[in-house]
Amino acid sequence: MSLRSDRPSLRIRKVSLDTGRENIAVVSRRSQALRPEVFQAFARVELRSNGRVLLATLVISDDDRFVAPDEIGLGEPAFRRFAGAVGDEVTVQPALSPASLDSVRAKIQGETLSDEEIGAIVKDLVAHRYSDMEIAAFLIGSASFMSSDELLALTRAMADAGTRLTWPTAEVVDKHCIGGIPGNRTSMIVVPIVAAHGLVIPKTSSRAIPSPAGTADTMETLARVDLGMDEMKAVVAECNGCLVWGGHVNLSPADDILISVERPLSLDTREQMVASILSKKLAAGSTRLLIDIPIGPSAKVADAAEAMRLRKLCEFVGDRLGIRVEVVTTDGRQPIGDGIGPVLEAADVMAVLRGEPTAPRDLREKALRLAGRLLEWDPGLRGGAGYDRARELLDGGAALKRMEKIVAAQGPTGCRAELGRLSRDVTAPRDGRVAAIDCLAINRIARTAGAPIDAGAGLKIFKKIGDRVEAGEPLYRIFADDETGRDLAFAKATADAGYELASIDAGEGTR
Amino acid sequence: MSLRSDRPSLRIRKVSLDTGRENIAVVSRRSQALRPEVFQAFARVELRSNGRVLLATLVISDDDRFVAPDEIGLGEPAFRRFAGAVGDEVTVQPALSPASLDSVRAKIQGETLSDEEIGAIVKDLVAHRYSDMEIAAFLIGSASFMSSDELLALTRAMADAGTRLTWPTAEVVDKHCIGGIPGNRTSMIVVPIVAAHGLVIPKTSSRAIPSPAGTADTMETLARVDLGMDEMKAVVAECNGCLVWGGHVNLSPADDILISVERPLSLDTREQMVASILSKKLAAGSTRLLIDIPIGPSAKVADAAEAMRLRKLCEFVGDRLGIRVEVVTTDGRQPIGDGIGPVLEAADVMAVLRGEPTAPRDLREKALRLAGRLLEWDPGLRGGAGYDRARELLDGGAALKRMEKIVAAQGPTGCRAELGRLSRDVTAPRDGRVAAIDCLAINRIARTAGAPIDAGAGLKIFKKIGDRVEAGEPLYRIFADDETGRDLAFAKATADAGYELASIDAGEGTR
Repeated sequence: MSLRSDRPSLRIRKVSLDTGRENIAVVSRRSQALRPEVFQAFARVELRSNGRVLLATLVISDDDRFVAPDEIGLGEPAFRRFAGAVGDEVTVQPALSPASLDSVRAKIQGETLSDEEIGAIVKDLVAHRYSDMEIAAFLIGSASFMSSDELLALTRAMADAGTRLTWPTAEVVDKHCIGGIPGNRTSMIVVPIVAAHGLVIPKTSSRAIPSPAGTADTMETLARVDLGMDEMKAVVAECNGCLVWGGHVNLSPADDILISVERPLSLDTREQMVASILSKKLAAGSTRLLIDIPIGPSAKVADAAEAMRLRKLCEFVGDRLGIRVEVVTTDGRQPIGDGIGPVLEAADVMAVLRGEPTAPRDLREKALRLAGRLLEWDPGLRGGAGYDRARELLDGGAALKRMEKIVAAQGPTGCRAELGRLSRDVTAPRDGRVAAIDCLAINRIARTAGAPIDAGAGLKIFKKIGDRVEAGEPLYRIFADDETGRDLAFAKATADAGYELASIDAGEGTR
Repeated sequence: MSLRSDRPSLRIRKVSLDTGRENIAVVSRRSQALRPEVFQAFARVELRSNGRVLLATLVISDDDRFVAPDEIGLGEPAFRRFAGAVGDEVTVQPALSPASLDSVRAKIQGETLSDEEIGAIVKDLVAHRYSDMEIAAFLIGSASFMSSDELLALTRAMADAGTRLTWPTAEVVDKHCIGGIPGNRTSMIVVPIVAAHGLVIPKTSSRAIPSPAGTADTMETLARVDLGMDEMKAVVAECNGCLVWGGHVNLSPADDILISVERPLSLDTREQMVASILSKKLAAGSTRLLIDIPIGPSAKVADAAEAMRLRKLCEFVGDRLGIRVEVVTTDGRQPIGDGIGPVLEAADVMAVLRGEPTAPRDLREKALRLAGRLLEWDPGLRGGAGYDRARELLDGGAALKRMEKIVAAQGPTGCRAELGRLSRDVTAPRDGRVAAIDCLAINRIARTAGAPIDAGAGLKIFKKIGDRVEAGEPLYRIFADDETGRDLAFAKATADAGYELASIDAGEGTR
């Protein structure tokens, strides 16, 4: 027997409630579509309309201005994901947990999952069938232990769950930094060098969360970055390389979903990091990948032993997925370059490409070193010749020219790229020598100033480790677009400037 | 320096959005109090007003009907928990994760937590400082392994985090059933018997989630159950016992919070069950506790080995917390009593207390057995005399009289307690013998009919295991208050009636 007609349908309405990632559906408490025994607030419901299905978290309202009894209110992102029109008829029923959640429970109990089970979990994740709590359950169940085979299956399933890019060349090189270091915009120098040499390097980057600027944010001050797949391919065909935002191309969407829950929980396991990086690169069609692991007390990786574990895992998964992975460890004790924030970092990058005398040497050297390693994948440049070739392409102006070509090909940016109009200096409290810089504190201050949303906000660093400073001398300058940002960032810097000063003669310092 | 004045405050407004358990705060996208670098939708924020603090999940709106740019909208339960007035000024800042979340992360990584760490987690839980995701992280981190000492610390911390009841007598007896069996309202018979004998038995019960009726729901059809602590004490002083809803007395509120997340995740670990039961009983001031573990294929505990593990754990924790625990295992293969749903179960209970010939024998026998065990804690009744004494009190009418006294003392109920006006029979598809009854299916059908929200909805069972049935003969009758409930429940029963029939001659049956 069919009782579908007994369950009243509701008409879609858009409610202006932005929940970021979790789907929310608002229903009137007086709605005939709600059976009291099965619906309670914050339970999961399944919406159906014309063959489309969406799982959402139920919020109940008594206010007819939000939803009338015969309506269902969808907030952002639920309205967008459901892809229905206002007024469409929807039926609501209690959501059954996705079947793959049984595998998550098994994992929590210590079992090892099969490729199929992991594949089903990733499929349900990408279909937004998991609530935040259920995503957390999967992440935490996997956090205590994950076998190499499970990691491999997870990475592959994540790559398969979104767009897979293909390229006409046999070799596609790529680089990735595990992040955490302020500044450090090497990709925007490495890509034009490597592309100018002739290797294909279609770089997709993330926006900055939780750092004050990602490569996509910084590149966006110079050119458009939200290219679709075909546009991206056209740019690469013309320039050998590109510097675009990966979000628009839908590479490994499961990764974005997992990260949206990892971040508020501050869960950061090695396995998740490897699955995240390699699923994106596999989806991007990379065949050779250079991974930069900065090591430092306030970096993501604190010591060489941890870097080695991460390296082994990357190599293991890369090997089996057909990506040749090379890992380099770099100095992650302090910011790379002088600017922190999109506009300031873009200025550093362009200064290096233009060979300006004030260009930050550390950024230049690191970019040359990474580009050199990538270039040595050219059979003609093996055995240490890569660095010299990279320097030749940079100093001879070929890299700058290639960057200008990429910028032109990607098109003009829509974002206002001016340095913040307000500034304030953070000064040394006493004479000394810079003994340490806390990358986390520097990131927080730059974000508080407004970066990356305000592209011109951030910090200009004047002093690095080893530099002598006198009391009252500026350590860095805060830039912001508004007084609140400037003052809040300054207050944060006053509480903890992120600098450790050592006495000139003694070894130990205090902040 | 203080910059508090730079951060604009918002005025509290109530928005009609019921989220059940998670705190939600709605803020306008144009609000000056939102700094873009630190606020994103579904991030956690900290609200402060006159020394009060509340953590909430941020929802951003563009609709001034929800919130104007200078307002902050609090839904239920956030408005109630914050205990502020409409129009109060509130400052908003990004919420730092509670410090105890570091211990949760350590637990996820396999560490064992100290008493202090567990105490801090429970304190933050009860202060609503944990998001659902963070609660899930704690539960899942603990699900794979929890040491006896951790379990002990958790139970103690949970009991300490709410009201602790104290009683004038040295011994306070109590009973608890781990649940899952439809019907099974023994407490409402056991309490009057034991109280009539003279032992003190202040019974607090939960409402039914996810079953079709809890003891509190069923008792509420006869008397008021939402008594405060002083009212409860007065009833116990007068009657030796009571049958009240525990929710109003705030016993182990951390338990309710953990359960609200365990349930949607279908996490049900032994340790959490023991901490849940014993923290409530410790908080209730019980010194002796009888725990009923029904065993059956569709009960919470499927076999004797699992029951034994649970018993050992209960005894271990009880011993150390000063509660003498006795565990009995009972038949959990089918419903106990004939009625499922508050009104129907109350009718069974009163029929047993009144000694009516139609009273369900299984309910009577189980209640006498449990009451007998409790009575033997009276030094004068050791060695098996408890059962006879219980029968004497029941058959002589003392238990009924005591029940009437308790009902009068608790006061008249506000709930409408009439049997559902609509009904429909579910019949046997063929001749046979009842081989098995699926408790989960029976619970689902009764809930779909409307129980426990509609107190008169539910099922009246006609056939139990071993009974012969003829094709077309009713197995049970569905009662409901409205056609939707009746028809949806009937549709569920048509898909799966929850009965397994065996052929009269053969051993095996099919549904």
